[in-house]
Amino acid sequence: MKRTANAIWNGNIKSGSGKISTQSGVLNSTQYSFNTRFADGIGTNPEELLGAAHAGCFTMAMSLALTQLGYEPGNLNTTANVYFDMEKGKIEMVELNLTADTIAGLSSKEFEEIARGAKENCLISKALTGLDITLSVEYKEG
Amino acid sequence: MKRTANAIWNGNIKSGSGKISTQSGVLNSTQYSFNTRFADGIGTNPEELLGAAHAGCFTMAMSLALTQLGYEPGNLNTTANVYFDMEKGKIEMVELNLTADTIAGLSSKEFEEIARGAKENCLISKALTGLDITLSVEYKEG
Repeated sequence: MKRTANAIWNGNIKSGSGKISTQSGVLNSTQYSFNTRFADGIGTNPEELLGAAHAGCFTMAMSLALTQLGYEPGNLNTTANVYFDMEKGKIEMVELNLTADTIAGLSSKEFEEIARGAKENCLISKALTGLDITLSVEYKEG
Repeated sequence: MKRTANAIWNGNIKSGSGKISTQSGVLNSTQYSFNTRFADGIGTNPEELLGAAHAGCFTMAMSLALTQLGYEPGNLNTTANVYFDMEKGKIEMVELNLTADTIAGLSSKEFEEIARGAKENCLISKALTGLDITLSVEYKEG
Protein backbone atom coordinates (compact mmCIF):
# COMPACT_ATOMS: atom_id res chain seq x y z
CA MET A 1 0.00 0.00 0.00
CA LYS A 2 1.06 3.56 -0.56
CA ARG A 3 0.29 6.68 1.50
CA THR A 4 1.23 10.15 0.41
CA ALA A 5 2.01 13.51 1.95
CA ASN A 6 3.41 16.76 0.62
CA ALA A 7 5.47 19.66 1.90
CA ILE A 8 6.10 23.00 0.22
CA TRP A 9 8.69 25.48 1.45
CA ASN A 10 9.10 29.00 0.16
CA GLY A 11 12.17 31.12 0.84
CA ASN A 12 15.15 30.90 3.11
CA ILE A 13 15.34 29.03 6.39
CA LYS A 14 14.65 31.90 8.78
CA SER A 15 12.10 34.11 7.05
CA GLY A 16 10.61 31.46 4.76
CA SER A 17 7.74 29.16 5.70
CA GLY A 18 6.17 25.92 4.69
CA LYS A 19 2.90 24.07 4.29
CA ILE A 20 2.28 20.39 4.91
CA SER A 21 -0.62 18.36 3.49
CA THR A 22 -1.65 14.72 3.67
CA GLN A 23 -3.53 12.47 1.30
CA SER A 24 -6.54 12.23 3.63
CA GLY A 25 -6.77 16.00 3.92
CA VAL A 26 -6.47 16.07 7.72
CA LEU A 27 -3.39 18.21 7.15
CA ASN A 28 -4.27 20.71 4.43
CA SER A 29 -1.62 23.35 3.79
CA THR A 30 -0.91 23.31 7.53
CA GLN A 31 1.68 25.97 8.40
CA TYR A 32 5.15 25.24 9.68
CA SER A 33 8.25 27.38 9.95
CA PHE A 34 11.60 27.70 11.70
CA ASN A 35 9.74 29.11 14.70
CA THR A 36 7.07 26.40 14.90
CA ARG A 37 9.83 23.81 14.74
CA PHE A 38 12.58 25.19 16.94
CA ALA A 39 10.83 27.88 18.95
CA ASP A 40 7.26 28.36 20.11
CA GLY A 41 5.50 29.57 16.99
CA ILE A 42 1.99 28.39 16.17
CA GLY A 43 1.83 25.57 13.63
CA THR A 44 3.03 22.03 13.29
CA ASN A 45 6.54 20.55 13.00
CA PRO A 46 7.95 17.25 11.75
CA GLU A 47 8.74 15.97 15.25
CA GLU A 48 5.17 16.19 16.57
CA LEU A 49 3.94 14.53 13.36
CA LEU A 50 6.41 11.70 13.93
CA GLY A 51 5.10 11.43 17.51
CA ALA A 52 1.53 11.31 16.16
CA ALA A 53 2.44 8.57 13.69
CA HIS A 54 4.18 6.53 16.36
CA ALA A 55 1.51 6.96 19.08
CA GLY A 56 -1.17 6.09 16.51
CA CYS A 57 0.66 3.01 15.28
CA PHE A 58 1.59 1.67 18.70
CA THR A 59 -1.89 2.16 20.20
CA MET A 60 -3.49 0.34 17.27
CA ALA A 61 -0.89 -2.46 17.49
CA MET A 62 -1.85 -2.80 21.16
CA SER A 63 -5.54 -3.20 20.27
CA LEU A 64 -4.59 -5.73 17.58
CA ALA A 65 -2.52 -7.83 20.01
CA LEU A 66 -5.23 -7.78 22.69
CA THR A 67 -7.92 -8.66 20.13
CA GLN A 68 -5.88 -11.57 18.78
CA LEU A 69 -5.46 -12.92 22.32
CA GLY A 70 -9.24 -12.82 22.83
CA TYR A 71 -9.43 -9.74 25.06
CA GLU A 72 -11.76 -6.80 24.50
CA PRO A 73 -9.72 -3.66 24.97
CA GLY A 74 -11.36 -0.61 26.53
CA ASN A 75 -9.62 2.74 26.46
CA LEU A 76 -5.95 2.65 25.41
CA ASN A 77 -4.20 6.03 25.66
CA THR A 78 -0.64 6.68 24.53
CA THR A 79 1.38 9.86 24.74
CA ALA A 80 4.52 9.99 22.60
CA ASN A 81 7.26 12.43 23.58
CA VAL A 82 9.83 13.03 20.88
CA TYR A 83 13.16 14.34 22.19
CA PHE A 84 15.63 15.96 19.83
CA ASP A 85 18.91 17.77 20.23
CA MET A 86 19.53 20.76 17.97
CA GLU A 87 23.28 20.78 18.69
CA LYS A 88 23.68 17.17 17.69
CA GLY A 89 21.14 17.46 14.85
CA LYS A 90 19.49 14.27 16.01
CA ILE A 91 16.22 12.89 17.31
CA GLU A 92 17.40 10.93 20.29
CA MET A 93 14.35 9.19 21.69
CA VAL A 94 10.65 8.55 21.47
CA GLU A 95 9.09 7.91 24.86
CA LEU A 96 5.76 6.06 24.73
CA ASN A 97 3.57 6.32 27.83
CA LEU A 98 0.56 3.99 27.74
CA THR A 99 -2.36 4.09 30.18
CA ALA A 100 -5.25 1.66 29.86
CA ASP A 101 -8.55 0.66 31.38
CA THR A 102 -8.62 -2.60 33.29
CA ILE A 103 -9.40 -5.60 31.08
CA ALA A 104 -11.24 -8.52 32.67
CA GLY A 105 -8.95 -11.48 33.33
CA LEU A 106 -5.73 -9.78 32.28
CA SER A 107 -2.94 -9.32 34.82
CA SER A 108 -0.55 -6.36 34.93
CA LYS A 109 2.31 -8.62 34.06
CA GLU A 110 0.59 -10.02 30.97
CA PHE A 111 -0.59 -6.57 29.93
CA GLU A 112 2.93 -5.23 30.10
CA GLU A 113 4.30 -8.15 28.09
CA ILE A 114 1.71 -7.55 25.39
CA ALA A 115 2.62 -3.85 25.37
CA ARG A 116 6.34 -4.66 24.96
CA GLY A 117 5.44 -6.87 21.99
CA ALA A 118 3.26 -4.15 20.42
CA LYS A 119 6.15 -1.71 20.78
CA GLU A 120 8.45 -4.09 18.89
CA ASN A 121 5.94 -5.05 16.21
CA CYS A 122 4.46 -1.65 15.39
CA LEU A 123 5.37 -0.66 11.82
CA ILE A 124 6.64 2.76 12.86
CA SER A 125 8.87 1.27 15.62
CA LYS A 126 10.40 -1.06 13.04
CA ALA A 127 11.18 1.90 10.77
CA LEU A 128 12.67 4.03 13.57
CA THR A 129 15.80 2.00 14.20
CA GLY A 130 17.94 5.15 14.34
CA LEU A 131 16.71 6.22 17.79
CA ASP A 132 15.81 4.80 21.19
CA ILE A 133 12.21 3.91 21.98
CA THR A 134 11.15 3.60 25.62
CA LEU A 135 7.81 2.43 26.98
CA SER A 136 6.07 3.02 30.31
CA VAL A 137 2.80 1.32 31.16
CA GLU A 138 0.09 2.31 33.63
CA TYR A 139 -2.46 -0.48 34.10
CA LYS A 140 -4.36 -1.82 37.09
CA GLU A 141 -5.58 -5.38 37.04
CA GLY A 142 -9.20 -5.85 38.11
CA MET B 1 13.62 19.90 22.82
CA LYS B 2 10.51 17.82 23.28
CA ARG B 3 7.45 17.52 21.08
CA THR B 4 4.36 15.60 22.08
CA ALA B 5 1.47 13.79 20.46
CA ASN B 6 -1.27 11.52 21.74
CA ALA B 7 -3.35 8.62 20.46
CA ILE B 8 -6.41 7.07 22.04
CA TRP B 9 -7.92 3.82 20.84
CA ASN B 10 -11.23 2.40 22.02
CA GLY B 11 -12.26 -1.19 21.43
CA ASN B 12 -11.03 -4.05 19.32
CA ILE B 13 -9.03 -3.79 16.13
CA LYS B 14 -11.86 -4.11 13.59
CA SER B 15 -14.80 -2.28 15.11
CA GLY B 16 -12.85 0.04 17.41
CA SER B 17 -11.50 3.43 16.42
CA GLY B 18 -8.93 5.95 17.47
CA LYS B 19 -8.19 9.64 17.77
CA ILE B 20 -4.83 11.33 17.25
CA SER B 21 -3.86 14.75 18.60
CA THR B 22 -0.69 16.84 18.51
CA GLN B 23 0.76 19.42 20.86
CA SER B 24 0.20 22.26 18.38
CA GLY B 25 -3.46 21.32 17.95
CA VAL B 26 -3.23 20.86 14.18
CA LEU B 27 -4.37 17.31 14.83
CA ASN B 28 -7.14 17.49 17.40
CA SER B 29 -8.89 14.19 18.05
CA THR B 30 -8.45 13.37 14.37
CA GLN B 31 -10.13 10.06 13.54
CA TYR B 32 -8.33 6.94 12.47
CA SER B 33 -9.42 3.33 12.26
CA PHE B 34 -8.63 -0.02 10.68
CA ASN B 35 -10.38 1.19 7.53
CA THR B 36 -8.60 4.55 7.30
CA ARG B 37 -5.31 2.73 7.66
CA PHE B 38 -5.69 -0.39 5.58
CA ALA B 39 -8.69 0.39 3.39
CA ASP B 40 -10.16 3.58 2.02
CA GLY B 41 -11.99 5.00 5.01
CA ILE B 42 -11.96 8.74 5.69
CA GLY B 43 -9.47 9.83 8.33
CA THR B 44 -5.74 9.77 8.88
CA ASN B 45 -3.28 6.91 9.39
CA PRO B 46 0.22 6.61 10.83
CA GLU B 47 1.85 6.12 7.44
CA GLU B 48 0.64 9.39 5.93
CA LEU B 49 1.68 11.20 9.13
CA LEU B 50 5.15 9.67 8.80
CA GLY B 51 5.21 10.88 5.18
CA ALA B 52 4.15 14.37 6.34
CA ALA B 53 6.92 14.43 8.97
CA HIS B 54 9.52 13.29 6.45
CA ALA B 55 8.45 15.60 3.60
CA GLY B 56 8.32 18.51 6.06
CA CYS B 57 11.75 17.76 7.49
CA PHE B 58 13.49 17.15 4.17
CA THR B 59 12.06 20.26 2.48
CA MET B 60 13.14 22.45 5.39
CA ALA B 61 16.61 20.81 5.41
CA MET B 62 16.84 21.71 1.71
CA SER B 63 16.05 25.36 2.43
CA LEU B 64 18.62 25.33 5.25
CA ALA B 65 21.36 23.90 3.02
CA LEU B 66 20.63 26.36 0.19
CA THR B 67 20.53 29.30 2.64
CA GLN B 68 23.85 28.27 4.19
CA LEU B 69 25.45 28.16 0.74
CA GLY B 70 24.22 31.70 0.02
CA TYR B 71 21.35 30.86 -2.32
CA GLU B 72 17.82 32.23 -2.01
CA PRO B 73 15.47 29.30 -2.48
CA GLY B 74 12.16 29.86 -4.22
CA ASN B 75 9.49 27.19 -4.19
CA LEU B 76 10.61 23.76 -2.95
CA ASN B 77 7.95 21.08 -3.23
CA THR B 78 8.34 17.52 -1.94
CA THR B 79 5.95 14.62 -2.17
CA ALA B 80 6.66 11.68 0.13
CA ASN B 81 5.22 8.29 -0.80
CA VAL B 82 5.28 5.75 2.01
CA TYR B 83 5.12 2.12 0.81
CA PHE B 84 4.18 -0.62 3.24
CA ASP B 85 3.49 -4.30 2.93
CA MET B 86 0.72 -5.72 5.10
CA GLU B 87 1.87 -9.33 4.59
CA LYS B 88 5.38 -8.58 5.77
CA GLY B 89 4.18 -6.13 8.45
CA LYS B 90 6.77 -3.62 7.32
CA ILE B 91 7.14 -0.13 5.90
CA GLU B 92 9.53 -0.77 3.05
CA MET B 93 10.34 2.59 1.56
CA VAL B 94 9.82 6.32 1.62
CA GLU B 95 10.14 7.88 -1.82
CA LEU B 96 10.88 11.61 -1.78
CA ASN B 97 10.14 13.51 -5.01
CA LEU B 98 11.44 17.08 -4.99
CA THR B 99 10.59 19.74 -7.58
CA ALA B 100 12.01 23.24 -7.31
CA ASP B 101 12.06 26.62 -9.00
CA THR B 102 15.22 27.63 -10.79
CA ILE B 103 17.72 29.36 -8.49
CA ALA B 104 20.03 31.93 -10.09
CA GLY B 105 23.58 30.63 -10.49
CA LEU B 106 22.87 27.08 -9.35
CA SER B 107 23.41 24.19 -11.76
CA SER B 108 21.30 21.02 -11.86
CA LYS B 109 24.29 19.01 -10.74
CA GLU B 110 24.94 21.19 -7.70
CA PHE B 111 21.24 21.31 -6.84
CA GLU B 112 21.04 17.53 -6.89
CA GLU B 113 24.14 17.20 -4.70
CA ILE B 114 22.64 19.59 -2.15
CA ALA B 115 19.40 17.59 -2.22
CA ARG B 116 21.27 14.32 -1.58
CA GLY B 117 22.94 15.95 1.41
CA ALA B 118 19.61 17.25 2.76
CA LYS B 119 18.18 13.75 2.48
CA GLU B 120 21.06 12.36 4.55
CA ASN B 121 21.06 15.16 7.14
CA CYS B 122 17.34 15.56 7.75
CA LEU B 123 16.48 14.53 11.32
CA ILE B 124 13.66 12.24 10.21
CA SER B 125 15.90 10.46 7.65
CA LYS B 126 18.45 9.82 10.39
CA ALA B 127 15.75 8.25 12.58
CA LEU B 128 14.32 6.09 9.78
CA THR B 129 17.23 3.70 9.40
CA GLY B 130 14.88 0.70 9.25
CA LEU B 131 13.68 1.42 5.70
CA ASP B 132 14.94 2.56 2.30
CA ILE B 133 14.74 6.23 1.36
CA THR B 134 14.90 7.20 -2.30
CA LEU B 135 15.07 10.67 -3.80
CA SER B 136 14.16 12.02 -7.23
CA VAL B 137 14.83 15.63 -8.18
CA GLU B 138 13.20 17.82 -10.83
CA TYR B 139 15.11 21.07 -11.33
CA LYS B 140 15.97 23.17 -14.36
CA GLU B 141 18.99 25.42 -14.25
CA GLY B 142 18.31 28.94 -15.51
